Amino acid sequence: MAMQDITVPSHLDIENAFNLIENHINHTPIFTSRSVNSILGCSAYLKCENFQRVGAFKFRGATHAILRLNPAEAKHGVITHSSGNHAAALALAASQRGIPAYIVMPENAPEIKKKAVAGYGGIITFCPPTQNDREQTMLRIKEQTGATFIHPYDNFNVICGQGTASLELMQHEPNLDIVIAPVGGGGLLSGTASYVKGRYPKVKVLGAEPKNADDAYRSLRDHTIYPSVKPQTIADGLLTSLSPLTYSIINRHCDGILTVSEQAIIDAMRMVWERMKIIIEPSSAVPVAAIMENAKLFHNKRVGIIISGGNVDLNHLPWQG
Amino acid sequence: MAMQDITVPSHLDIENAFNLIENHINHTPIFTSRSVNSILGCSAYLKCENFQRVGAFKFRGATHAILRLNPAEAKHGVITHSSGNHAAALALAASQRGIPAYIVMPENAPEIKKKAVAGYGGIITFCPPTQNDREQTMLRIKEQTGATFIHPYDNFNVICGQGTASLELMQHEPNLDIVIAPVGGGGLLSGTASYVKGRYPKVKVLGAEPKNADDAYRSLRDHTIYPSVKPQTIADGLLTSLSPLTYSIINRHCDGILTVSEQAIIDAMRMVWERMKIIIEPSSAVPVAAIMENAKLFHNKRVGIIISGGNVDLNHLPWQG
Repeated sequence: MAMQDITVPSHLDIENAFNLIENHINHTPIFTSRSVNSILGCSAYLKCENFQRVGAFKFRGATHAILRLNPAEAKHGVITHSSGNHAAALALAASQRGIPAYIVMPENAPEIKKKAVAGYGGIITFCPPTQNDREQTMLRIKEQTGATFIHPYDNFNVICGQGTASLELMQHEPNLDIVIAPVGGGGLLSGTASYVKGRYPKVKVLGAEPKNADDAYRSLRDHTIYPSVKPQTIADGLLTSLSPLTYSIINRHCDGILTVSEQAIIDAMRMVWERMKIIIEPSSAVPVAAIMENAKLFHNKRVGIIISGGNVDLNHLPWQG
Repeated sequence: MAMQDITVPSHLDIENAFNLIENHINHTPIFTSRSVNSILGCSAYLKCENFQRVGAFKFRGATHAILRLNPAEAKHGVITHSSGNHAAALALAASQRGIPAYIVMPENAPEIKKKAVAGYGGIITFCPPTQNDREQTMLRIKEQTGATFIHPYDNFNVICGQGTASLELMQHEPNLDIVIAPVGGGGLLSGTASYVKGRYPKVKVLGAEPKNADDAYRSLRDHTIYPSVKPQTIADGLLTSLSPLTYSIINRHCDGILTVSEQAIIDAMRMVWERMKIIIEPSSAVPVAAIMENAKLFHNKRVGIIISGGNVDLNHLPWQG
């Protein structure tokens, strides 16, 4: 599909998504901290999706995509291949609607992720840990079951769901100067930019990405979608690359992507844990790190930060080496 | 002083304290979690004083004690000997009123605590790490400066301030069946019991204490104040023993003290981190552990838990051995 033919969401699509999901999701709090503001040199408003169900914003998009299925589609369930937060979110959202969720996971996925998906009622099929095996296994089960494939981010309804985090943020804090969100596959940033730029065109929307996984930054710069090739970053939610849909939206709406070092991610994550007493995952620390590394850009501004999630391996924290 | 002569606070004293401090403190959120409720077998309402200023409920009592000083007293400042949250709280509360806080700390106090107190503007005097040295140093500086000594818990105004956490909790959740708080020196539990029993006499008020530091449990049982002798517990906020004042209040109002194992404290702390994505210190996990170890007592009840604080050494978490 040529990129200009892609249908992108408007802020109205995200408002409709919110109306559909609002009784199914947590309306997460917005946290502020005097000491964090003093460290960052700006007024930061953290939209805490670490307090969302399954511990991540992904529950918004998964819930929205599932609620949009018509009854005939829904009864066959949904399917995805993922080992991350999207799989857990899809499993829980499906169980809330009372339909099956088929999750294809690589057999070497961490035990904790297998348990999470199973705990939310997902029907897991393990496969060899290659992209090809994942896709083949998914297609086979999809054919057997008639389940609808829900891509983690290259999906209009998923993106509209993710955008509802910024809708809640802006409703409480309509006078923000900047909104910043992490970017991996681009679902969260796409939803955020679609809503904020559509409804509050004067607000600047920025993405934040690890330097070690800067495919989105390069894709936007060079007007082509680069794949994310074996990125080495602790921000394990940001390993994927943009899709045609997320590229189109971000290219249209986003004011820029800032890239940050691994050390800055670790420092920002620890700073938020220490000062705010909330558990955020490394991916969520990426926009905080971007503020720390670009202090002038944010100086004295009112900055909304989408905190994407709080799923962390507590046995091994990044500052413990 | 004979114990029967001790003046104990009523719920009205705590309401007055709240009126005095309400514009100076954080009104901390009350957190709930489906998955925590399912694990605990009850409806738990966590009053999150880990989000209080300085990361602990101690800021309430310190602020109240300082605001109660008349101008003549206030200008000479306040003094305490402590290496914990009370010292940080007193330093910040004093700086908010623009008066000096003299903090006597043992010279071997952890670097992070020294930094915290200094960061809040406390004037630190180091002394050898014995109780006698601490008291002598404190008395000497008190004489030199005319500062008012603010005990961390054997102080009427401090206790009234601590009780305001349960006031906020009950105002939002007036239908609780049980309120449970950790007990060390007893300031938090005294304030909690004074307010809740005075205003909502049908609500059960419980204390929770490490088995390895069960002096309050034994003191209540035997009607005598036992000192806390070198307790070995990870709940480092609960090492002190009851005072005549806190003993009197707890003896009058409290429905019981539950003691918990070290392993249960660790398990409860990790469970809250994982499920709720909030950082609570070991002392705060003690009442959660008490619910886990006494499931029948709490089954299907509506339980308020005072989460005392969130100051944790992130380099060394208890489940990491």
